[in-house]
Amino acid sequence: MTPRYGANYVPSTGWFYSWLDFSADAVRRDFADLAGLGLDHVRVFPVWPWVQPNRGLIRRRAVDDLLTTIDIASEFGLGVAVDLLQGHLSSFDFLPSWVLTWHQASVFTDRTVRDGIAVYAAHVAKAVATRDNVFAITLGNEVNNLWPANPTTPSASREWASELLDVVRGAAPDVLCLHSVYDDAWYAPEHPFHPADAVDLGDLTTVHSWVFNGTSRLDGPLGPATVSHAEYLVDLAASLAPGRGVWLQELGAPRPDIPAADAAEFVRRTLAAVAGHPALWGVTWWSSHDIDRGLLDFPDREYDLGLFTVDHEPKPIALALAEHLRSTVTPPVPVELPCPVDLRAEPRRRDEVAPGSAFHTEWVRNRPARIVHP
Amino acid sequence: MTPRYGANYVPSTGWFYSWLDFSADAVRRDFADLAGLGLDHVRVFPVWPWVQPNRGLIRRRAVDDLLTTIDIASEFGLGVAVDLLQGHLSSFDFLPSWVLTWHQASVFTDRTVRDGIAVYAAHVAKAVATRDNVFAITLGNEVNNLWPANPTTPSASREWASELLDVVRGAAPDVLCLHSVYDDAWYAPEHPFHPADAVDLGDLTTVHSWVFNGTSRLDGPLGPATVSHAEYLVDLAASLAPGRGVWLQELGAPRPDIPAADAAEFVRRTLAAVAGHPALWGVTWWSSHDIDRGLLDFPDREYDLGLFTVDHEPKPIALALAEHLRSTVTPPVPVELPCPVDLRAEPRRRDEVAPGSAFHTEWVRNRPARIVHP
Repeated sequence: MTPRYGANYVPSTGWFYSWLDFSADAVRRDFADLAGLGLDHVRVFPVWPWVQPNRGLIRRRAVDDLLTTIDIASEFGLGVAVDLLQGHLSSFDFLPSWVLTWHQASVFTDRTVRDGIAVYAAHVAKAVATRDNVFAITLGNEVNNLWPANPTTPSASREWASELLDVVRGAAPDVLCLHSVYDDAWYAPEHPFHPADAVDLGDLTTVHSWVFNGTSRLDGPLGPATVSHAEYLVDLAASLAPGRGVWLQELGAPRPDIPAADAAEFVRRTLAAVAGHPALWGVTWWSSHDIDRGLLDFPDREYDLGLFTVDHEPKPIALALAEHLRSTVTPPVPVELPCPVDLRAEPRRRDEVAPGSAFHTEWVRNRPARIVHP
Repeated sequence: MTPRYGANYVPSTGWFYSWLDFSADAVRRDFADLAGLGLDHVRVFPVWPWVQPNRGLIRRRAVDDLLTTIDIASEFGLGVAVDLLQGHLSSFDFLPSWVLTWHQASVFTDRTVRDGIAVYAAHVAKAVATRDNVFAITLGNEVNNLWPANPTTPSASREWASELLDVVRGAAPDVLCLHSVYDDAWYAPEHPFHPADAVDLGDLTTVHSWVFNGTSRLDGPLGPATVSHAEYLVDLAASLAPGRGVWLQELGAPRPDIPAADAAEFVRRTLAAVAGHPALWGVTWWSSHDIDRGLLDFPDREYDLGLFTVDHEPKPIALALAEHLRSTVTPPVPVELPCPVDLRAEPRRRDEVAPGSAFHTEWVRNRPARIVHP
């Protein structure tokens, strides 16, 4: 299978705040950058509380702006994946006033809030599914980052995602319906979102590879553990659900873990490693564009993740990505490595497969390796 | 002094969510209702996180929409009071993502957040002060309701308000600069906003009279304690700062405390009582328009507080208010009652002047009465 390649769309002007001042021309200019690289899709992120500021109000104009964004992608031949519940974006959580303070309620466990989210999810999913170039709908970006502000339990988290996926599937039966979690779900023993959720729920497994999770401290920026983390996470996910595709839905080159001077080489090595994985469905780079430093309070690494600057200049990582798209990857002949933990049955032992664990070290040493789950 | 009369502007279509879909025509239609009653001003409420979604971004269009609102008021000869930090509106708190969850910080005590708010306050104050019909700028609507979600202490609360008033005064030297608190500041012993703040800070004292605070349970809806609560609160505030004006900035007839059938009489008696108070600067009714019941999660009483329905029909309370504007109030000859507590020195004894206290009961029995503070 030839993987799809795309970008997570971070607007070059005004970041996601640009939804509040929507400009079709600005979106068109940004998408021209991405199509020019040879990418085939974008992942887009409406901001939940601006679309549904009241539980009883879904703003028509906000949905229209999302549809316009999708139609502009179509002008460039770009497919679109829509994430619904933002929710979490680059350290910021966007939550409506109807779940905060005097109305405090967990988005995961409060029945009334869940019903409100279901109305939102159904409405937006149905609207975007009218567009032929929409190929996937994800519940929301790294929804597990909405915890701990929103209390949940492993069973509640799974039920929440499962229920909401049914809602989305009902509204958009012809697109991929997906769950999305940050990698704490794979590595953090007590995290209330489990690996089994990632591989059981939805139509593909999605993984997000960020080497600032500790991996880059092992041997980064260009060491074997660092440049193989994306492949490792894809392999780990594939091992738990053989035969199911894995979408590397986020991959980025964060500073200071990956200094600017090493970023292009990080891209080359990381993509060369992961591209040959037979389970790989696609790769979506985070992110399309940098963030203007006039916008404050982001973690420093978030500002420079773009393939393009805010002035539309392609950065070396963009050129490295484009170069990869023109290359041919010969699938490796891997060795098989038994996983020491059944992640489905023993999520509390997730730390035994985390970056830096004995098993991960062995996997890196034996590359190319394929994990075999018990 | 003849008091000014106005309304707190709650948009008839889409409540304050209408800022996200601003319509000058809708505002014009609403202000025509209010001017038609004979009112002379409106109090308007921008929503902070939609104007300043990032600490480094103040949306020009949002400020322009606020200015357009002010200019439309001018078309009808209406003065405008602008509240800055919403913040709190009818049980909902609107807080930007840069003070929530992963960025959790108290708006009252975090230095970086306070600096961000100061930038917002200065920017908006300077912009609205360019309009001749803007006569007041209040820091925010009942900012003390942002506690306890935002921790504070009495000294921090006072310093916060004092600092921000200086910012606003610097940006808008020719308008009234005001602080605004819910009446817990007057009655709740442990509340971290003190009566002294209300009467020392800003250019007028503002009070908000809501008989659902316990007063209506004493003898409401038309009993003497209930219909005199506005006057009592004005008198209490006046007693602590003789010679300073008191703006009854909010007054409403909430159900079920005041049933619809009694609302007009509640208006008549309440206004007749308070209008003769020599310290009264003005009265601003809450609210201009009802809330569409398609908008969810409001406390039930919030939906029907309007002078007008969402369809622009004047309600009996609107007619009673208009009738009051045409009447003449003869100032009473009051008896003097010594306050048993120095509210400035002993805020922990605030419950001794709260509705239902022995002192309040005595004040009601002796009406017309004027409190003399020790």
